[in-house]
Amino acid sequence: MQYQFAKNVDDLQPSAIREILKFTGMPGVISFAAGSPAPEAFPVDSIQEISKELLEKEPALALQYNITEGYPKLREQLKAWMREKQCFNESMDELITTSGAQQANELSCKVLLDRGDTLFCEAPSFIGSLNAFRSYGVNLVGVPLEKDGMDLAALEKAIQQNPNPKMVYVIPNFQNPTGRVMSLEKRKGLYKLACQYNLIILEDNPYGDLRFAGKNVPSIKSLDTEGRVIYTGSFSKILAPGLRVGYVSAPKEIVSKITVCKQVSDVHTNIWAQAVCSEFLERTDMTPYLKKLQAVYRRKCHLMTDGIQQHFSSKVTYEMPEGGLFLWCTLPEDCDMPAFCKKAVEEYAVAVVPGNAFLVDESAKTSSFRLNYSTPSDDQIVQGIEILGKMTKEILGA
Amino acid sequence: MQYQFAKNVDDLQPSAIREILKFTGMPGVISFAAGSPAPEAFPVDSIQEISKELLEKEPALALQYNITEGYPKLREQLKAWMREKQCFNESMDELITTSGAQQANELSCKVLLDRGDTLFCEAPSFIGSLNAFRSYGVNLVGVPLEKDGMDLAALEKAIQQNPNPKMVYVIPNFQNPTGRVMSLEKRKGLYKLACQYNLIILEDNPYGDLRFAGKNVPSIKSLDTEGRVIYTGSFSKILAPGLRVGYVSAPKEIVSKITVCKQVSDVHTNIWAQAVCSEFLERTDMTPYLKKLQAVYRRKCHLMTDGIQQHFSSKVTYEMPEGGLFLWCTLPEDCDMPAFCKKAVEEYAVAVVPGNAFLVDESAKTSSFRLNYSTPSDDQIVQGIEILGKMTKEILGA
Repeated sequence: MQYQFAKNVDDLQPSAIREILKFTGMPGVISFAAGSPAPEAFPVDSIQEISKELLEKEPALALQYNITEGYPKLREQLKAWMREKQCFNESMDELITTSGAQQANELSCKVLLDRGDTLFCEAPSFIGSLNAFRSYGVNLVGVPLEKDGMDLAALEKAIQQNPNPKMVYVIPNFQNPTGRVMSLEKRKGLYKLACQYNLIILEDNPYGDLRFAGKNVPSIKSLDTEGRVIYTGSFSKILAPGLRVGYVSAPKEIVSKITVCKQVSDVHTNIWAQAVCSEFLERTDMTPYLKKLQAVYRRKCHLMTDGIQQHFSSKVTYEMPEGGLFLWCTLPEDCDMPAFCKKAVEEYAVAVVPGNAFLVDESAKTSSFRLNYSTPSDDQIVQGIEILGKMTKEILGA
Repeated sequence: MQYQFAKNVDDLQPSAIREILKFTGMPGVISFAAGSPAPEAFPVDSIQEISKELLEKEPALALQYNITEGYPKLREQLKAWMREKQCFNESMDELITTSGAQQANELSCKVLLDRGDTLFCEAPSFIGSLNAFRSYGVNLVGVPLEKDGMDLAALEKAIQQNPNPKMVYVIPNFQNPTGRVMSLEKRKGLYKLACQYNLIILEDNPYGDLRFAGKNVPSIKSLDTEGRVIYTGSFSKILAPGLRVGYVSAPKEIVSKITVCKQVSDVHTNIWAQAVCSEFLERTDMTPYLKKLQAVYRRKCHLMTDGIQQHFSSKVTYEMPEGGLFLWCTLPEDCDMPAFCKKAVEEYAVAVVPGNAFLVDESAKTSSFRLNYSTPSDDQIVQGIEILGKMTKEILGA
């Protein structure tokens, strides 16, 4: 039988990263291709203890249906935390929990964009979000990402040239895949453009708490006076991603519509996981906890950059991140990036992701690749970078 | 600021049941309005034990990212179980886990229907699914539900009269809200119509294992030779709904497309919950376990019908269910149903759901209401039915 799929999803393919990830399960392959947080940083003991108490004391809470908006106590805790960060404006905003920030980003698009409307994203950007937007048939337009964030002149031109411009999607902190941080100046500039052209900004901040160098930059949400910023966050990188708990702080009307759509999507987020997050926040002094977490990421990042300096061809450049999970490396311009990454995994058994996997048009040229330092072990980082370094020297010379 | 929402969701409202449920939280109100399974049937001890062992032995499994398709061991167990039930055809089908059957139903619509395509459902039907379909802008057409299932002559006429007929959504076992079972004859007739008019059947079976009387009727999926039935199931009613674990068994091409859409929706379903379901299936002899569960539902159902026979006006009729969670009661035709339910909750502090809440057009006339016997306690059933009976006699006479 021939199936006729909906227009919006007919061309939708699993992300190119998935193809690379197939190799990473093979024995002997060292993977720098994942986007997972450092497993050694999971607070396993706390979660064990909290879960045990929860299931003993309040089994009905953890097991019965709950409300779509999320576990009320967790929502209050998150509102307080986001208020501290100036990411929740009591008079204007509402906050609900979601099944990961992925759901928050997906539903933000679903409730606001019609098929054919234009959504602007950084090029490169997080492929999971881009595919979510694609699944609603939007016109996805990539805007070049500079070292300090999206090229705003290019954005303005793109706004003028595309039909029904509606939304800009950005990851301002330790962006996936580049690790870059958007400057305060650009955050202000982006917000100004959004006001000028009546756009909604979708600010995705999964890595913001993993800053291990430099100074915090205020969120775009904190600059919002008109109610045009949707801010999404997650427990995936600060607690554990298997929980699938995220949240969205946004103007009340938008959250109300997202809630209706979440109800028809999964009724509510797994309630055990929400209660675990809540109790973890309750019992933990988050500032020292996050400092410890940041130290783990700083150490692993430096282990990788030290190896790069020691082993890589000098023709490979990399950008030193101030936080997050990723390192962005760039080869000379004439390099065939997909071929480089294919060779790395097939002949050298080291997996990295070619930069084109993060572009709106995956067939576009790129000379960069993404390295992840949070998932591999120390040994894997040391060995894998040495192997990769040897390969860069063979191809590019010292 | 005025927000312009997407056309598909602009009119989408929280379900009317929600409005009733607001009252059910009030002290003293007895609620027969919920759709939750019996909390006393949750296997709390097993889940406590399994969760403890899981978090001690395999914390990284429970806490790290996993694959979108679902926890591999659980998928294999479900395939085996569905094969036994003739709901999984090895040569044609694939099976993935989802975040409740709600997600399976939603994504089935998302991958196959364009805005404006027609989807047929039973009238009345489960409002959560209807709203999921609405959120993709489909033309939702209700087909009258007879005692033995959908009126197939009316369905055929509707197929001929509506643009782009694509899908039929049915809950063949202990339907929500009526508790009715679709006869084998009608299942065969529906499948024949689907073949004739090239439709996909979405068979939603959350209550099938809760049969406490009568004989099992083969699933529509078991009749499928052409690959046009999507079968969705759930752990919500046989284990615990807070887990949010469901599954979909369908032709490989459809499951593959659903997987891509699930990836952009929530990456994967909470992995702790999937592992708990898996280990529960591993450790439990499901036949006696389900028999015990069925006994709980049978007893509560009979407690309620005994009360109805004793206290209700003879002008109120009800249908004796053979399983599931719901009782369907009908008043004389000239009764104002929404007013009846409003009076019940406001003056008598007993909440029931008016039948119109389950119709495609909520403003249509109905003289039925839904009673749930699984969520309330025995005392609440006895007291609430007596109160409601008094009210029916005051309004309608003995």
